[in-house]
Amino acid sequence: MASQQPLAVGLIGAGRMGSFHAETLAHRLPGVRLAAVADPAPGAVERLAAPLGCATAYTAIVDLLADPRIEAVVIATPARTHADLVEAAARAGKAVYCEKPMAVTLAEADRAVSAARDAGVALQVGFNRRYDPGFRAAHDKVVAGAVGTPQLLRSLTRDPKLADPAPIPPWTIFLETLVHDFDTLRYLNPGADPVEVFAMADALVRPDFKDRGLLDTAVVTIRFDNGALATAEANFQAVYGYDVRGEVFGSEGMLTLGDIRRTHLTSYGSGGITAECVGYDQDLFRDAYVAELADFTDRVRTGRAPAVTGEDARAALSIALAAIQSVTVGAPVRIDELKEH
Amino acid sequence: MASQQPLAVGLIGAGRMGSFHAETLAHRLPGVRLAAVADPAPGAVERLAAPLGCATAYTAIVDLLADPRIEAVVIATPARTHADLVEAAARAGKAVYCEKPMAVTLAEADRAVSAARDAGVALQVGFNRRYDPGFRAAHDKVVAGAVGTPQLLRSLTRDPKLADPAPIPPWTIFLETLVHDFDTLRYLNPGADPVEVFAMADALVRPDFKDRGLLDTAVVTIRFDNGALATAEANFQAVYGYDVRGEVFGSEGMLTLGDIRRTHLTSYGSGGITAECVGYDQDLFRDAYVAELADFTDRVRTGRAPAVTGEDARAALSIALAAIQSVTVGAPVRIDELKEH
Amino acid sequence: MASQQPLAVGLIGAGRMGSFHAETLAHRLPGVRLAAVADPAPGAVERLAAPLGCATAYTAIVDLLADPRIEAVVIATPARTHADLVEAAARAGKAVYCEKPMAVTLAEADRAVSAARDAGVALQVGFNRRYDPGFRAAHDKVVAGAVGTPQLLRSLTRDPKLADPAPIPPWTIFLETLVHDFDTLRYLNPGADPVEVFAMADALVRPDFKDRGLLDTAVVTIRFDNGALATAEANFQAVYGYDVRGEVFGSEGMLTLGDIRRTHLTSYGSGGITAECVGYDQDLFRDAYVAELADFTDRVRTGRAPAVTGEDARAALSIALAAIQSVTVGAPVRIDELKEH
Amino acid sequence: MASQQPLAVGLIGAGRMGSFHAETLAHRLPGVRLAAVADPAPGAVERLAAPLGCATAYTAIVDLLADPRIEAVVIATPARTHADLVEAAARAGKAVYCEKPMAVTLAEADRAVSAARDAGVALQVGFNRRYDPGFRAAHDKVVAGAVGTPQLLRSLTRDPKLADPAPIPPWTIFLETLVHDFDTLRYLNPGADPVEVFAMADALVRPDFKDRGLLDTAVVTIRFDNGALATAEANFQAVYGYDVRGEVFGSEGMLTLGDIRRTHLTSYGSGGITAECVGYDQDLFRDAYVAELADFTDRVRTGRAPAVTGEDARAALSIALAAIQSVTVGAPVRIDELKEH
Repeated sequence: MASQQPLAVGLIGAGRMGSFHAETLAHRLPGVRLAAVADPAPGAVERLAAPLGCATAYTAIVDLLADPRIEAVVIATPARTHADLVEAAARAGKAVYCEKPMAVTLAEADRAVSAARDAGVALQVGFNRRYDPGFRAAHDKVVAGAVGTPQLLRSLTRDPKLADPAPIPPWTIFLETLVHDFDTLRYLNPGADPVEVFAMADALVRPDFKDRGLLDTAVVTIRFDNGALATAEANFQAVYGYDVRGEVFGSEGMLTLGDIRRTHLTSYGSGGITAECVGYDQDLFRDAYVAELADFTDRVRTGRAPAVTGEDARAALSIALAAIQSVTVGAPVRIDELKEH
Repeated sequence: MASQQPLAVGLIGAGRMGSFHAETLAHRLPGVRLAAVADPAPGAVERLAAPLGCATAYTAIVDLLADPRIEAVVIATPARTHADLVEAAARAGKAVYCEKPMAVTLAEADRAVSAARDAGVALQVGFNRRYDPGFRAAHDKVVAGAVGTPQLLRSLTRDPKLADPAPIPPWTIFLETLVHDFDTLRYLNPGADPVEVFAMADALVRPDFKDRGLLDTAVVTIRFDNGALATAEANFQAVYGYDVRGEVFGSEGMLTLGDIRRTHLTSYGSGGITAECVGYDQDLFRDAYVAELADFTDRVRTGRAPAVTGEDARAALSIALAAIQSVTVGAPVRIDELKEH
Repeated sequence: MASQQPLAVGLIGAGRMGSFHAETLAHRLPGVRLAAVADPAPGAVERLAAPLGCATAYTAIVDLLADPRIEAVVIATPARTHADLVEAAARAGKAVYCEKPMAVTLAEADRAVSAARDAGVALQVGFNRRYDPGFRAAHDKVVAGAVGTPQLLRSLTRDPKLADPAPIPPWTIFLETLVHDFDTLRYLNPGADPVEVFAMADALVRPDFKDRGLLDTAVVTIRFDNGALATAEANFQAVYGYDVRGEVFGSEGMLTLGDIRRTHLTSYGSGGITAECVGYDQDLFRDAYVAELADFTDRVRTGRAPAVTGEDARAALSIALAAIQSVTVGAPVRIDELKEH
Repeated sequence: MASQQPLAVGLIGAGRMGSFHAETLAHRLPGVRLAAVADPAPGAVERLAAPLGCATAYTAIVDLLADPRIEAVVIATPARTHADLVEAAARAGKAVYCEKPMAVTLAEADRAVSAARDAGVALQVGFNRRYDPGFRAAHDKVVAGAVGTPQLLRSLTRDPKLADPAPIPPWTIFLETLVHDFDTLRYLNPGADPVEVFAMADALVRPDFKDRGLLDTAVVTIRFDNGALATAEANFQAVYGYDVRGEVFGSEGMLTLGDIRRTHLTSYGSGGITAECVGYDQDLFRDAYVAELADFTDRVRTGRAPAVTGEDARAALSIALAAIQSVTVGAPVRIDELKEH
């Protein structure tokens, strides 16, 4: 491996997530180099590329895709652009890692998956919780039968605080936040397919944004074809920190997941017991973000199939779309009767 | 208080729950005495009354109700008989403590509540979790504003193991198990009323009993009129123990509730960390059962109104009935459009 | 059992501990009655006895001991009086339950043990932690080999706050507080005997009382004859609550013990995670106090030997005296070379 | 920073710890490069250097020290060689990071400290727990007064399993294992100096090695000059994993430290609650090892003084030597009367 050339990876999107991935690609992955960065935002690539020792910076994404030295791309642009970029990158013959959600319509998702298949390139999607050691161990235990047949599942995401809601598109809570939970529920109920979805949602954090269609609180119930009933829950403003938890209950036991503590320090004082919570800035999934790129690039280099596929992205999307439809019509929605959103 | 005569309480129903209450009434409550026991089952009252030093045992409940020495009754018979017994006891002028559920139809509930009101007797219902120090402290904190406005709630009950399902009536999971959780959700979201209910349920523990209408796994989503979205969840067979938990999330924070550990002992060995779970036999709510009878009898003796009322029972029942209707029709049900079950 | 006469128990000492035991004897133990109370303090017995329905109150302890109706006594007087009262009660033919410490010198301890043996009466000592379900389960696990051979042990007691130190006798931290921990260490290292003791102690909470000999902080190291090294630690003022914990580490694993949380409620807010601690008033060992009297009275009634013996009290005392001697001479002290204090 | 030349670091010692540091230096620290590796063991440097892209490999350490391109060295050789290498590296003008213990005699420690001072080079010692976020937060809280005046402290280290004890030198438990705890106790009791030390130790894991002087279990009590009493405890074989914990108790509260759980996954089954423990291979302090080298190299590059000094190493060593002397003489030892070991 040492004698091999490092894998040349191009990063598309120099925002918060992109910057983190850039640092990972530049410094943390042996056998990988950050070969180029592309972002149309003025100044973005300059700020990011040079300090990381990356000499090539594009303001036109198309130029990065046309760069023959680039073997793989990491897409970290706004969600609504993902599917088109996956398609374009696949056609350009690049292996593709795409941040979640890979697509926001089923048609888009199908095109992205087809493009990668037709081009014969790897396509991996950024469901990073699958790379967290706790979630991974839970999945493995479920596969090994530790809980028997899953009967009840739960996954929740509560973001530490709501940034300015103005630019947030409607349905974001389903398409960008809960899509993680929908994937987690599939990951923790392996082999089962969602059948029916019911969702309640509201604008409780910022009621003033409700008339713009921005919902910030949601509860989704999902029935799977193995009988399991699952709940996914999200909220955009947890004042205490970044709260991600999961639970699988089955005929032989239960697994619980989640760790909101910042460190292992506990304080005891006249006010009782206290401990600090983790927030975005001490990111709960920092190691998982690194691990997923390490796995993706390793699979590309060794020619193995990606671990989290475009089909996985499509399956999670279908639950999100069913939830949106359920909120719209006020009734449960069957996945097989899903009307395209 | 010492010079006062002890309050004479009659126990109706000498089963598992009744036996526990009998022991509490006989031994644990200063100022209270177990004055009579009534149960039509052959031999039941003899087995229970004498060893507790209770000289009066009736095989006809009507005889206990007619006994003028009895000042208050504790009803611990099968659920379907509760409302009629509440009504009869109220008419007989006894203060009434009734195990949950107080009724299984709204008409019954209304009759029971009216009977107590008309007779001017106290009527308290056995939602014992309100007497658990953790749940009580959570309620108090919510009232004090510790979580701000509640936005997401959860309550779950998983029973340690499914006894023979044969004699369990249909809808028990809603009417007898989840009714606790419905009350807990009201208790943790004080002052709010349920508006809409959606339920998914199945027979996953014992699929062979599904065609008899016995459901053993359920997830219920409830929208309250303060916007809060709540989930109640139940299952009849948790192999690890007796699992009762709650959660309230709001604009200013979150509270979590639940303690499945049997003791404070933790073991560390070559197989990792282990601890034991609590089951029915080390009952999680033993102290709460005692506390609720202590409070009931104290209120009766001092002429104060009961803390958990017939109206509370009716409100929890209405959620249960809406959940049953939701399962039946496969759609969300509004509480104000509830058809009597 | 129901036809048997209740066991007539006399309580000696109507202070805080005595009052709790009185309530237990009067109300909580079927087959037991509080037959008399004795306390020389003016008004003490009147305040306690009558409200509990106990008609006999003595201001002279000797009168209680002379009362032929009394079958067993519970001694809850100040520590320095215990041994003489055990001796007197035994000579009067009463079964004896004595609060810890049973004695504060080895000579006293020997006299007390001999008196009970000679009189053929039961003698049980109030090491209540042995009746806590967690400590008991730990003991049982050690006996069952769960940790292999014990190698390292720890027991600690931190009291919630230092009441007025003025009346506290010197060496109290060893004779009255740590004596619990010394017994716990013996209980968790069953069958092993202490060989050597080293103690460091100081007046850190109230340095102004150091010159009166009042120490409030201590660490004691003990070597047992099975090789195990143990630490006992105490402090008179933990601002966060009542902190009692234990640990046993051995060749096959570890057990940890202790639960300072008041309830199972956890709060999450902008200040992080918080929970409340237990204090004296929500006593950590309330159930254990009841359980030990239940066990004692049951053993007396059924003629079985007591579970926590005078010999146990003597063994814990010998460690306390060695610790005192160690502090005095500034060197480790062998138990077999212990000079009487 | 980007335009600056990376800091050229030479690694001395290609064993387990050295290999980890090599990987950190090669890949994880922007602005740092692994410039050379030296280890006299046949084949060691070849195995390590080339795969990490490090072209220079020495089998003679003296050659690395003579290499003028090397600006800083990381010493990760066996403990007994540390002090001489610190001295030699300082004389060669290299900044020095030395794994703990920096020295095993006070004379050595003094020579190492002097050499660095005389050469005007940075000298940092590898007490990595100071770079763990929990321990660091605890230190900061103590400094901020969160526990008031420290009164009782505890630090313990239990290694997951005893490798072949044959090559382990006598007193290793004090000089190499507990030296971490001694430093931790100083870190958690900032500004206080140890005054008196008492130790009990034994060969309980491998009694057959006791006659070679190998002790594997130890308890050390330390009195500090601010009155605080501290316990350090170690054992070479914890079958459940790698157990490192700490505790500071003071006039205003307590802090507890330690996290033996491998992940945030908890399992509940018919056997109760289970969770996995961390071992060496999922190293508890992996991030802390990286953080300390990041901090060291950053300080060297920016000309700031090291955070963990040779004086810190000497202070921890003095406690270790006092503990050894205490075991030898069977009595407490004052630090100011310490006889050189």
